[in-house]
Amino acid sequence: MLIVMDHNTSRQNIDNVADVIKQAGLDAFMCAGVDRMAIGINGNPDKINEATIVRMPGVKEVVRISKPYKRVSREVHPENSTVKINDQIIFGAGKPVIIAGPCRVESAEQITAITEGVKKLGAHMLRGGAFKPRTSPYSFQGMGVDGLKLLKQVGEKVGLPVISEITSADFLDEFAEFADMIQIGARNMQNFDLLTKVARLNKPILLKRGMSATVTEFLLAAEYILNEGNDQVVLCERGIRTFENSTRNILDLNSLALIKSISHLQIIADPSHAAGQYDLVAPLSYAALSAGADGLIVEVHNKPDEALSDGAQSLTFDNFEEMMKNINNIQS
Amino acid sequence: MLIVMDHNTSRQNIDNVADVIKQAGLDAFMCAGVDRMAIGINGNPDKINEATIVRMPGVKEVVRISKPYKRVSREVHPENSTVKINDQIIFGAGKPVIIAGPCRVESAEQITAITEGVKKLGAHMLRGGAFKPRTSPYSFQGMGVDGLKLLKQVGEKVGLPVISEITSADFLDEFAEFADMIQIGARNMQNFDLLTKVARLNKPILLKRGMSATVTEFLLAAEYILNEGNDQVVLCERGIRTFENSTRNILDLNSLALIKSISHLQIIADPSHAAGQYDLVAPLSYAALSAGADGLIVEVHNKPDEALSDGAQSLTFDNFEEMMKNINNIQS
Amino acid sequence: MLIVMDHNTSRQNIDNVADVIKQAGLDAFMCAGVDRMAIGINGNPDKINEATIVRMPGVKEVVRISKPYKRVSREVHPENSTVKINDQIIFGAGKPVIIAGPCRVESAEQITAITEGVKKLGAHMLRGGAFKPRTSPYSFQGMGVDGLKLLKQVGEKVGLPVISEITSADFLDEFAEFADMIQIGARNMQNFDLLTKVARLNKPILLKRGMSATVTEFLLAAEYILNEGNDQVVLCERGIRTFENSTRNILDLNSLALIKSISHLQIIADPSHAAGQYDLVAPLSYAALSAGADGLIVEVHNKPDEALSDGAQSLTFDNFEEMMKNINNIQS
Amino acid sequence: MLIVMDHNTSRQNIDNVADVIKQAGLDAFMCAGVDRMAIGINGNPDKINEATIVRMPGVKEVVRISKPYKRVSREVHPENSTVKINDQIIFGAGKPVIIAGPCRVESAEQITAITEGVKKLGAHMLRGGAFKPRTSPYSFQGMGVDGLKLLKQVGEKVGLPVISEITSADFLDEFAEFADMIQIGARNMQNFDLLTKVARLNKPILLKRGMSATVTEFLLAAEYILNEGNDQVVLCERGIRTFENSTRNILDLNSLALIKSISHLQIIADPSHAAGQYDLVAPLSYAALSAGADGLIVEVHNKPDEALSDGAQSLTFDNFEEMMKNINNIQS
Repeated sequence: MLIVMDHNTSRQNIDNVADVIKQAGLDAFMCAGVDRMAIGINGNPDKINEATIVRMPGVKEVVRISKPYKRVSREVHPENSTVKINDQIIFGAGKPVIIAGPCRVESAEQITAITEGVKKLGAHMLRGGAFKPRTSPYSFQGMGVDGLKLLKQVGEKVGLPVISEITSADFLDEFAEFADMIQIGARNMQNFDLLTKVARLNKPILLKRGMSATVTEFLLAAEYILNEGNDQVVLCERGIRTFENSTRNILDLNSLALIKSISHLQIIADPSHAAGQYDLVAPLSYAALSAGADGLIVEVHNKPDEALSDGAQSLTFDNFEEMMKNINNIQS
Repeated sequence: MLIVMDHNTSRQNIDNVADVIKQAGLDAFMCAGVDRMAIGINGNPDKINEATIVRMPGVKEVVRISKPYKRVSREVHPENSTVKINDQIIFGAGKPVIIAGPCRVESAEQITAITEGVKKLGAHMLRGGAFKPRTSPYSFQGMGVDGLKLLKQVGEKVGLPVISEITSADFLDEFAEFADMIQIGARNMQNFDLLTKVARLNKPILLKRGMSATVTEFLLAAEYILNEGNDQVVLCERGIRTFENSTRNILDLNSLALIKSISHLQIIADPSHAAGQYDLVAPLSYAALSAGADGLIVEVHNKPDEALSDGAQSLTFDNFEEMMKNINNIQS
Repeated sequence: MLIVMDHNTSRQNIDNVADVIKQAGLDAFMCAGVDRMAIGINGNPDKINEATIVRMPGVKEVVRISKPYKRVSREVHPENSTVKINDQIIFGAGKPVIIAGPCRVESAEQITAITEGVKKLGAHMLRGGAFKPRTSPYSFQGMGVDGLKLLKQVGEKVGLPVISEITSADFLDEFAEFADMIQIGARNMQNFDLLTKVARLNKPILLKRGMSATVTEFLLAAEYILNEGNDQVVLCERGIRTFENSTRNILDLNSLALIKSISHLQIIADPSHAAGQYDLVAPLSYAALSAGADGLIVEVHNKPDEALSDGAQSLTFDNFEEMMKNINNIQS
Repeated sequence: MLIVMDHNTSRQNIDNVADVIKQAGLDAFMCAGVDRMAIGINGNPDKINEATIVRMPGVKEVVRISKPYKRVSREVHPENSTVKINDQIIFGAGKPVIIAGPCRVESAEQITAITEGVKKLGAHMLRGGAFKPRTSPYSFQGMGVDGLKLLKQVGEKVGLPVISEITSADFLDEFAEFADMIQIGARNMQNFDLLTKVARLNKPILLKRGMSATVTEFLLAAEYILNEGNDQVVLCERGIRTFENSTRNILDLNSLALIKSISHLQIIADPSHAAGQYDLVAPLSYAALSAGADGLIVEVHNKPDEALSDGAQSLTFDNFEEMMKNINNIQS
């Protein structure tokens, strides 16, 4: 922690700050700049109430140096972490994990057709929404538990582990039973109650970045999960909200690449939600993998023009086939 | 709904779109622009799957015209709504409602001193956090139910209705019993599970705008509450996240003034969280009221330099006294 | 300047950094945190190349403490500055300065009618665009030098000093002759060539904030002008670009209030461009003045529905009259 | 153009709007929605003053359908355009064009070493700043014309065409003579005076996106150049300003991929300025090329730790060599 003093503040003001630091059992170091003093603190700054300092006469600013996350940091865990799904899939084993499926489970026919389709084309996991957080109360909210069971049943038959989004702690038991990986969506990234409860299920979690969450907030949300003793977390960059609205959100590969370097966690990308339109999904997928993403989660639908939601951004089987071919070429 | 076609698309493509519209039982109108056609739809566009249209050959873009909210709109409810707290306080009775208190309840001594202080200086309601959503799992999370009871007990003794933030559906009963108004915080604005459950308690709700929620998303979150039959909702503008970080968030008075004109709901401002520093709270408070805010929620602390959280942005009694004096002068 | 080292970096790495600092003739101070070292520097950090430090082994981050602006800072000039226009108007004399007029000069009739109208209703200065920066090359770009002369001629006759925006150094002489105050627009805030040349005219300048300029960038743009020996600068907050697009830009009163505290410069607000719609201009004007703005610049038109540009955000005489009445009531 | 009417507005209000449209010689079409009317316009909406409409009683909103750009649009020019530099380099010939060099020309030794280095490692063009727009007036502003001549001289000797940024119309002649391609920087993207004058030189132009310019504004800035009869324009995505500041700007590959589909112009990426730190330059470069970028412009320095500017984001020769190797592998 560094305390920056006002230009030309009095010696008395400086001494008063130093006294508060010493009373907390810490060392204060004077750093004299050209036009002002700064006071550095040796030791754990959590022993000091920042508000006390910032309101003292002559104090201009308090600068925190340490990052607030620990367990997610590569500094304490230098190797990439790995996350296993049912002994079938491993995030972190070197090959990107491709998760595909519809925005949501609509019927047995639909989910069966899609699951068989994406499996054949090389997907490693199946996505499908049963509970959907919808901006409007008048939008259909999903099939609920029935959808979740259907997803699991079809996934098992076809041989793909399944992932679905949880939106309420009321269904912890059902997700524990029927999901192989549980998704915490962007809107719930800082729903700490849900984060903590899902973490305690000790199942693999896909944590999506909030659409305006900073990298630090994103990593701290993951830290909540690790702090419950669950290290089976995969992050997901899904686009951030900016001034630009010619596409839905902007896939933030700067942050993805940065997270790869400062954290040991696996991180995948969701180009479908970032783009909002199917024709940009493939280029953004290639870009994400090239930037270091450990996998992708993409929306694929057998009849996207009839999809009950997100049809505009869903890939057809043909789109997905072509994309998978190109991805395999890049990889080899 | 308006469907914009590609420049120079074929007659066949246009006819195909018109056919889909007619099959849905709606009328299609051709609008010929200088360089392209657009097709307008007569009737309820919800009968058509937008994804079907947007993926048809020759379609450039689909533009939605109608706003998705209904109950919160001034068009269906021209007069300002009013929200009553315990027959003590009325939002919408003409005078701004001032809510004051600490970031969180820390002890009986602290909350008693603050409650008596702000009551004497003219506050109408008491705020105090018992459950705090904290970005880091290592930050103290509040006194919980004990804090809530303490808040209510002191508020009752001193004669101020109380408001506190709920962060988990686990405590619905306690909030129903001990809070006079329940706050849904910025991070939970789109926690639709919590929104719905709290709405059903049929108590007054203060709904804070998410830090990057659009006006439409904000109004739709309120629509969730009204849709449950609870019209006792007050909105709260608390600053939005932008590129500018010289202050914590930017108080968005454009949106506040806009909401006053398009919605009948009451809306107050939270200058403390928007500013992040106490010396900007007063000017932002004056600004919010001048722009039409129906009230304020501000953090006041008897010893802000010892506050366990948000000390840097809390007003002292002296600050609050001066601000209230200026507010009363403006009002008169 | 503070150099933050990697967690558990070697003693050798720390010593190497300290050596570079000492070779630059500065003192290095060791600040030992709980999990890492930081190295503070005594003296002028400009003597050190930041890139040298940041690329050394073991260095995590370099944190700059000092603010890069000097002349605009309240620390070096504690009293508010004042800006005089022709001995007629003084920014900083205690009363807000109201600048009104059309987006652009369209004809002698139009500018005469508007000038007489706003003068009668209490405006202190006349605005009118002669050269307009237009996003599209196909939009009409203004009357040019003829418009500027017309503005000055009518302003002089009616008794209002005039302000107009310069967009090219080709017209420095004309602006020197015909403008009483020269506006640098938002798009040119970092056009350093233009800033410097206009500064050297030694005339009063209204410097608008770029729509995504930070407070620091804004103050540094003003610093360019002061650095040329011209201290007759008034800043103008005109709304920032954010994710929210339900109104054109968001008037940033956080930054306005902050600038009042960290800089001695006068700062006014432009609610017309921030709002983009005339019915929000009045509430935003009241808000800006309440937050501490030293004046306003607003668009007023005698026939806004026929205005060649910005008609949607222009006030009518009736709107302006009512707004001025309310402003005078607040002030008294 | 579509005019959306208020809910339940009167027949008279609707007729009045229709009359204005007809008086302009255009056709009005009524589109009756479930809860409101909208009025579509047949023909060129530029014949109508939008402000007239938007201020009429009963009008809620005016929605513009057509895009304001023409010449840059793929609709009017379906094939990718090509841009030739000196018959040496062609943008749009299938292989990405790699531009490399220092942030700025510092000395004959420096620029010679770097030019020889990057040429050997496969760069196609040489970049080097002679005039630098600096946020602070106290930062060194570059070598000026001498730097530009030096750049050209060394580029010619080593066999690389050169590109440099122009910041003032005072040096049009020098850039016409000594630059093979002229860069318009992000801060000057909407300096329409400079855009127009540089366009008239009829030399190839690299137009950088403003850091908060929308795709439409970016394309309209290019339209200014094409509108002067100069079609030798290459766009450059260099990162946008968002709430996220853990890296300098966010490389916006959504917009890059979108521009590839809606415009025929070539577009390259500048990962150095987007990242702000050298270790993220390579992953962002791979990502940009994978998303469809037609080339890259990257900062390379022989001694980045001694670079007078942008040292933290400059690649060493070793970094650049490794990156070029990986790029060639992806391409093949």
